[in-house]
Amino acid sequence: MQMLLMTPGPTNVPERVLEKMKNTQCHHRTKEFGRIFGELNEGLKYVFQTKNPVLTFPAAGTGGLEAAIVNLFSPGDRVLAVSIGVFGDRFIEIGRTFGLEIDVLEIPWGRGATLEELEGALKDEHRALILTHNETSTGAVNPIREIGEWMKEKPQLYVVDAVSSLGGSEIRMDDWHIDVLITASQKALMSPPGLTFIGVSDQGWEQVEKAKLPRYYWDFKKARKDMEKPSPQNPYTPAVALIGAASEAIKMMQEEGLEAVFERHRILAAYFRQEVEKLGLPFYTHPDYLSDTITAIATTKGEEIKKIMETKYGIVIAGGQDQLKGTMIRVGHMGYVNQEMIDRTLTALKGALEEVC
Amino acid sequence: MQMLLMTPGPTNVPERVLEKMKNTQCHHRTKEFGRIFGELNEGLKYVFQTKNPVLTFPAAGTGGLEAAIVNLFSPGDRVLAVSIGVFGDRFIEIGRTFGLEIDVLEIPWGRGATLEELEGALKDEHRALILTHNETSTGAVNPIREIGEWMKEKPQLYVVDAVSSLGGSEIRMDDWHIDVLITASQKALMSPPGLTFIGVSDQGWEQVEKAKLPRYYWDFKKARKDMEKPSPQNPYTPAVALIGAASEAIKMMQEEGLEAVFERHRILAAYFRQEVEKLGLPFYTHPDYLSDTITAIATTKGEEIKKIMETKYGIVIAGGQDQLKGTMIRVGHMGYVNQEMIDRTLTALKGALEEVC
Repeated sequence: MQMLLMTPGPTNVPERVLEKMKNTQCHHRTKEFGRIFGELNEGLKYVFQTKNPVLTFPAAGTGGLEAAIVNLFSPGDRVLAVSIGVFGDRFIEIGRTFGLEIDVLEIPWGRGATLEELEGALKDEHRALILTHNETSTGAVNPIREIGEWMKEKPQLYVVDAVSSLGGSEIRMDDWHIDVLITASQKALMSPPGLTFIGVSDQGWEQVEKAKLPRYYWDFKKARKDMEKPSPQNPYTPAVALIGAASEAIKMMQEEGLEAVFERHRILAAYFRQEVEKLGLPFYTHPDYLSDTITAIATTKGEEIKKIMETKYGIVIAGGQDQLKGTMIRVGHMGYVNQEMIDRTLTALKGALEEVC
Repeated sequence: MQMLLMTPGPTNVPERVLEKMKNTQCHHRTKEFGRIFGELNEGLKYVFQTKNPVLTFPAAGTGGLEAAIVNLFSPGDRVLAVSIGVFGDRFIEIGRTFGLEIDVLEIPWGRGATLEELEGALKDEHRALILTHNETSTGAVNPIREIGEWMKEKPQLYVVDAVSSLGGSEIRMDDWHIDVLITASQKALMSPPGLTFIGVSDQGWEQVEKAKLPRYYWDFKKARKDMEKPSPQNPYTPAVALIGAASEAIKMMQEEGLEAVFERHRILAAYFRQEVEKLGLPFYTHPDYLSDTITAIATTKGEEIKKIMETKYGIVIAGGQDQLKGTMIRVGHMGYVNQEMIDRTLTALKGALEEVC
């Protein structure tokens, strides 16, 4: 049985995208592939809202974070990182693994950073500010638009992990002065997992030229060179079927229009939360930092609720991650999501609550 | 139109595998996924002929080569590498990128190394011997079984890139004393591209413990730990649909039987070459080192032949790679391949030859 995936990713994939994945079985050095990959590349510029090329690697989103670190920095570079949860911590751990000196602005989990906190933390010696937009583990967002305005005149690179928000929450890479923006296929972009996408600004490319950390598979320059050939390619065999899928999914987003996509996410998130409140459930996340794509509900009965929703209702949601296990359930409402799916989820949640209470 | 892919990968994927890919849309932390991934893991042990776990990463085969380097070595480690073509050179380039001292045994392209050549080259100070089994760029193989016998009593790690042969040519990881064996989904394993698979021997795991090169995404220990959970998982979101596909493809290989799979490849390779010889075409590769999965045919009219076969006959083959461009055509006969596909390819090749001569 196909379960309804109301998790923070992988999310539901439209039949049209699945069909396209199945039917995209071409060789990666043909014009046919070049056409599909070219369409994806144009589509990615649209969903990233950038004039610059967006790179594609066969990898998980974590691979995209690693790719950003090894292409942007040299050993010993000092950067400021903001952590508001598990994924913020992961980005820091990756940076430290590759020898960066990372100063961490620790924000209490459940909310995002404020500009005042950032102002006190960012120093001249930092080469970059790295942070998570939408913290999948807590359902909280950092105010990346305001931070981008503030970063505009600063020399530091502005690096944003938007794995669980890009394509669902409003993000405008160029207008918001983001230098490096990372996402993955299986969240708001309505595609199966296995691809990471990375946008790089002009300032980001300047930094790539200077960065000395070794890289081979993740090499941004090689990837860009090949995607800018008359028939776009990849340095190594790309995940052809997944590229077909992602290209089709973004085509669907283009047809709907990005503004409408954002609006749909905003409306469904608000509706879902309004109904959850009616059930008397508290949110884990601070009300000023709520995500458009994920809701974290505080409960100690998460594992039981999750199990009932899965086995009795065919709906998969997520529990708490790492140290948050047992403290919450997380419901994803992003990508290929509509009112009916939210209503099914609410019915199942209500049914599960009645059983566990 | 679905083209017939007679390239050295991506290769033709059976409908059954494509259907399974389309229908594998589960969440990666569910028991359903654990069952599918567990089946894949068992199947991989069978096709690798190893008792040890085989790791899976969402990546191209080149990612698998990089993963091997960063998990096995420390900066400055000296290793011996054998290059018999483009992919041998790539493995060396990756090693050097990450700071290895690599001594290269350069073998004239078109053949494999001999034991005598290796005996003169491998020194006590080398920590490993790394080489390519099936050189995709030249259609030549290294005699990895004989080399394995010889390596058996040696302390050096024996690292083999079998991206374009594993599952088509006979390879027995444990019996042949291979410590690290790397392949990818889109060649003889009849699956779409996007996954790399890496087998590691007990001696290999000992080396992973000692190796100091930084790694995060490619971390073997994390991958092993998660795949050995009661419900097998991955540290980061896996390429779920591709895992479903690969699991199904290996199930088909199990049904056919690995010996029968190898025999089919041997028979079809011999038949294809016999017919190519009848057409008066010379091979690029030395007759003692011919691959079971790829045939390289020497011709300066490769680009024209390739184009005619593609546009008139719907068959994709490959030309020469990098510095070999314009010197050959390469035909893949691996994975989901049968007599009828070979005959169609021969008819098309004959037709193309008549046009270009």
